[in-house]
Order: sequence, then structure tokens, then C-alpha cells
Amino acid sequence: MPKIHNFSAGPGILPRQAMEAGAKACLEFNGKGLSLLEMSHRGKDFIAVMDQAVSLVKELLGVPAGYSVVYLQGGASLQFAMVPYNLLDEGESAAYLDTGTWANKAIKEAKIFGNVKVVASSKDANYNFIPKGYEIPKDAKYFHVTSNNTIFGTQMQHFPESPVPVVADMSSDIFSRPVDVSKFGLIYAGAQKNMGIAGTTLVIVRDDLLGKVKRKIPSMLDYKIHIAEGSMYNTPPVFAVYMAMETLKWVKQMGGVSAMQKRAEEKAQRLYKEIDENPLFKGTTAKEDRSRMNVTFVMEKPELEEAFGKEALAAGLSGLPGHRSVGGFRASIYNALELESIDALVSVMRDFAKKNA
Amino acid sequence: MPKIHNFSAGPGILPRQAMEAGAKACLEFNGKGLSLLEMSHRGKDFIAVMDQAVSLVKELLGVPAGYSVVYLQGGASLQFAMVPYNLLDEGESAAYLDTGTWANKAIKEAKIFGNVKVVASSKDANYNFIPKGYEIPKDAKYFHVTSNNTIFGTQMQHFPESPVPVVADMSSDIFSRPVDVSKFGLIYAGAQKNMGIAGTTLVIVRDDLLGKVKRKIPSMLDYKIHIAEGSMYNTPPVFAVYMAMETLKWVKQMGGVSAMQKRAEEKAQRLYKEIDENPLFKGTTAKEDRSRMNVTFVMEKPELEEAFGKEALAAGLSGLPGHRSVGGFRASIYNALELESIDALVSVMRDFAKKNA
Repeated sequence: MPKIHNFSAGPGILPRQAMEAGAKACLEFNGKGLSLLEMSHRGKDFIAVMDQAVSLVKELLGVPAGYSVVYLQGGASLQFAMVPYNLLDEGESAAYLDTGTWANKAIKEAKIFGNVKVVASSKDANYNFIPKGYEIPKDAKYFHVTSNNTIFGTQMQHFPESPVPVVADMSSDIFSRPVDVSKFGLIYAGAQKNMGIAGTTLVIVRDDLLGKVKRKIPSMLDYKIHIAEGSMYNTPPVFAVYMAMETLKWVKQMGGVSAMQKRAEEKAQRLYKEIDENPLFKGTTAKEDRSRMNVTFVMEKPELEEAFGKEALAAGLSGLPGHRSVGGFRASIYNALELESIDALVSVMRDFAKKNA
Repeated sequence: MPKIHNFSAGPGILPRQAMEAGAKACLEFNGKGLSLLEMSHRGKDFIAVMDQAVSLVKELLGVPAGYSVVYLQGGASLQFAMVPYNLLDEGESAAYLDTGTWANKAIKEAKIFGNVKVVASSKDANYNFIPKGYEIPKDAKYFHVTSNNTIFGTQMQHFPESPVPVVADMSSDIFSRPVDVSKFGLIYAGAQKNMGIAGTTLVIVRDDLLGKVKRKIPSMLDYKIHIAEGSMYNTPPVFAVYMAMETLKWVKQMGGVSAMQKRAEEKAQRLYKEIDENPLFKGTTAKEDRSRMNVTFVMEKPELEEAFGKEALAAGLSGLPGHRSVGGFRASIYNALELESIDALVSVMRDFAKKNA
């Protein structure tokens, strides 16, 4: 069997050392004669894990004072509801940027709680670019964006200046580049794309935004309660938090988010170059909005896609088929993916072009 | 280091074979050259895991037609809100039995959504028994019970005949005994006490109870959506579902829930016998309501508790200190705990009694 190169869109590739640490913790943890999986979350061993998982987020992203960091459950999809539940009172408005499937889902949930103003949308172009030049209404409670669109392969290279707090779903590009957290009101991210495994969600929130809506919030959906209890209001997803910690330890060892950005740029550049130069392939998105996490491309002759897909699979390239909304191919090249995997893909693309010249 | 006997109240002890399977899956799964942790949840490998995790629940508990089984996130604590969100309209009433801390939390959340009638409570006796002889109002939308009270060491040995659907939090005793699912409207259980690791919650629900409230339900809190999407409306907690599957495979191999019941009775009987016969110890709950999952006991002379705690720890008995609400000790003896661990505890109790006669 060839080495498998994992281009899965998520759950996605993780650092090998994190998976090895996870395997070890399943059997025995900290020399205590017990598996991490069967330890009380109130014991000092797991408390140290949670503390480190939180402090690594603060350190790596430079989270300023006045912000809280919590690990929750339910994925970004639960955040689509929790954000307006906590921030948007009935009769108030929130602004949303519509850049794809996940933005749409966020919009749908927000409408349950208040009014939604979609400031701009690239829907008519099948979301192949990030809208720009829109106006953010000053009376909005917040402005919601999706920083990277996993399905459509676009990414916000800049965040707009906003008169209201910006809320960002960073599920598929968090920890892939430096972010000025002070420019955001709330950042959330499902862990399973770039910072760990499925089963936990990171939330970074500016404390002074909370506690202002009049509705009663169920405890498990109330950010203030999770913050007050240090992500331990109820039993946290122990193993998922541990894997986030191990993944972030690796990010730090590698040089932090600046190093991740350099790594991502190098990988993305090499792959987009091949897409642009290889006569058989073409990218699907506006060049200036190209994602450095999810590289989407199709073939000039769609009838060749099946054959290319088979050759890629035979060469150990896993997870390449594109999402049905775009078709073609999608190479998800998250932090943990090595440059050699890009080279393997580029090599298959070149070989295929030669054979089909 | 002596063998560690794990009496943790939760996350609690798991079958060794499940932890070994988990460790292996962290490194490589199904011969695919990838870790389970980095595989798409939409791929056939994980779909097979989810299917088996669901079908084992149906098989082991004999779930009848007309019920759905889903794996969610957020723990039982999120169910405290989801149950009334889905079943209790504003102005309607639900009946609750108050048997301890978790029942109280469920009651608190339900009050956000409708009216709550507490039919009976053992609060005045520090929840050391299960109330009986109460009346369940016929106009209640449902009647909520906690089948086993992890903190106070009581367990419902029988479920009442009810004129309205019974909703049961079975977090700490599910799969420890046969249950006639047809007598329930909804059963939920956080996995981390008796059926897996922290990070997923099992819900079994009678389909015809759903879709009747008038309020809008956020997608992630709507049972109907999770059912329609086969627990994959969004990325499920992959590893937690896998560990539930592996744990339930073990339950089946051991002979199913009847075998688990026999095992639990034998373990509980042996430990309660020592508590009753040893002059230094006494149980904290009414005998007829004693839990076969969480055995709570204190010492006749409280000043000896610190010394006993130390001896227990030195003998490799982990997780024995009682919850602060009860004090003393709590031996959580979930499915995976072996009889030899009970014997180890009994032996330390006897030795301690001899030395302190």
C-alpha cells in the first residue's frame, strides 16, 4: 500500500504526534494506571489538560485581556444558534455576509432569534468569490462572517473594518494564520478541521458583549455559564479537548501561527501554480479570494474527471473528490498536511496531463 | 504500582478491549492507512460505525418500532433543555420527580419553556430515598424521572405506571439492566458513565411525540432533524460514537443487558453486605432504593474517614471519595468494573476494621 496523503475536508489530517499521544492516552495516562478515557474530568490530570488547551489558544492567537476562551460541544452548527441566542434580542438586527453553505446555515438559525440583514452575497456566482465593498449597518448587534468557505474554496484575506462587533466562524482556517483577536467580538471554530478531532468547538468571546439579551438562555447555551465554570459546567468532551491540546502543542513547536501561515502559503502556492499552468485543470474561485486551506479545482474536460479521480486514489491521494455543490476536486491542505503531499498531488496531475496531452 | 481499581463516578471505567480498540483506531483504522480521527464522517468506514452503534442500542434494549435512536452532543445537561424545547409548549405543564442534583437541573431548564409540576421530592432527606405513591397529573405533557442518582446513590427499581409519556435520564445506569422501552416516551443518557466516553449522548425517542410544539427550534436542538439525518446533521463526535460502539459490542459479547444486570447485582450485593456487616461503615440510602451503580457509604466515626481514604488509595482503589453533597465514600461500580475490584475494596474495609476494632 502506498503512503496515504490525506486531503479530507474534515475531520481532516492531524499531526502524527498528536494521534500517537491520543493512542497512548487511551491505554494509560500520566503514569496513573488508568486510561484518560476513564478518568474523572474533575481530577487534577484532566484539569491540567483543559488549562493547557485554553492557555495554548491564548498564547498562539495572542488573545487580549477582556476575552474568554472556552471549549464547548455541538460543533459550529450549534454556534449558529448560540451566537444569536446570546447576542441578538428579539426585534434587534444582526448583519451577515453570505459566502456559502455554512454562512447560509448561520443565517437560517439567526432568523429564529431576531432580524437578519444579509449585507452581500456571492450566491449568484455559486459563491466563487468573497463579496467586497458592502456596508455594515451601524445598528446591527454584530456582523457575522465565515472566514474560510470549506466547500467553495474561498477565504477572506482581509477582514473589513466594522462599526459593530465582528463574529467569525473560523472552523476551517483557525490557527492557519495570525489573527488580530481584538478586532473580533466572537470567534468560533469546530475543532475537526485544523485544531483537533470532531467533538469540541472553540469559542473566543469578548466578555462585555454577554449578558445583554433579555431572553432566558438554557444553561448549556449560555456562554456566561461556560466561562464561569471554565468549560466544565458539565462533563466536557475529555478526549476531544486532549486532542486539541496535543494539536496546538504541535502548532507551537512548529513555530506558531506565523509558521503555519508560511507553511500554508507555500503549499497553496505550489498547488495553485500547477492548477494554473496545467492545461487540464482550472481553479473554481476568484484568484484574490483563493483559500489556503481548501483548494477547489475542476478539469477543462469534465469527462476526464473520473479517470483522474481513479489515478489519484491509486496513488494514495485520499479525500480529493469535490463537494457536490462545486464538483471536480477539493484538496484540503490543513496545517498538518506536509509539503510532500502537495508534491504527490502535483506529480499525479502532471503525469495525467502527459498521458492525456 | 498495584493494579488500579477504578471506582470513578464518571467518566468511568470502560472495558479494556474498548480502550485497546480506541488506541488502535487512533493510529490506523480498517486497514485504510489513516487514523479514524482524520477520516471524513461521510465515508463508508465511519458510516458503518454509526450504523452499528445505533443497531447495537436497538438490539440490546429491544427498541420497538416507532422509536428513533440518535447520538448527539452536549451531555445529559443539554437534554435537560432539549426535552422541553421539543415537547413542552409555552403554557403547558410537565411533571418532574425530584430525586437529586440532576433532577433539579432538569427542572430548572424546563421552567424556561413551560410550567413544571414537581410531583414528589426527597430533598428534605438529602435525597436518600426515591419518593413513591405520588400522583402524575394527567394533563402533563410528560413525566420526567432520573433512573439512577449518581451523587446520592439511589436508583428506581421500578418505574411507575404513568398516564403520560415517561422521559427518563438514564445517564448512569443505562445498559445495566433490561428496560421496557415501550413504557417510555424518551430515554437519554450521557455516554461517559456506562456506555462509552464523554462527548456523546444517546437519545431514544418515540417518534409520534415530536413536531407538536409551536415554537421554532434551532436545528441542532431539534430531534426531528437529527433523526432525519441519522445523527449526521453536522459532524458527529466520531471517536465518542466509535467508543460507544466498542463498549456496546462488549456488552453484547458478555451476554447483553440481562448478563449486565446479574453482574451488577452480584457486585452490589457483595459490597452492600460488607457495608451492612462491617461495624465501621454504614450505607446512606434507604435499602430498597439502593443503587447498583453508585454505592454510597460513610463511616460510623467520621474522624476515621481520612485514614480509610488513604488506605484505600494506597491499595489502588481510585475514585472512592464521596460527592460533597453526601460526604464519605462512593464506589461507582459500572458495567465494566470487575468483581475482583469489589473484592479488593471489601478486603481493605475488613483490614481497616480489624486494625480499628
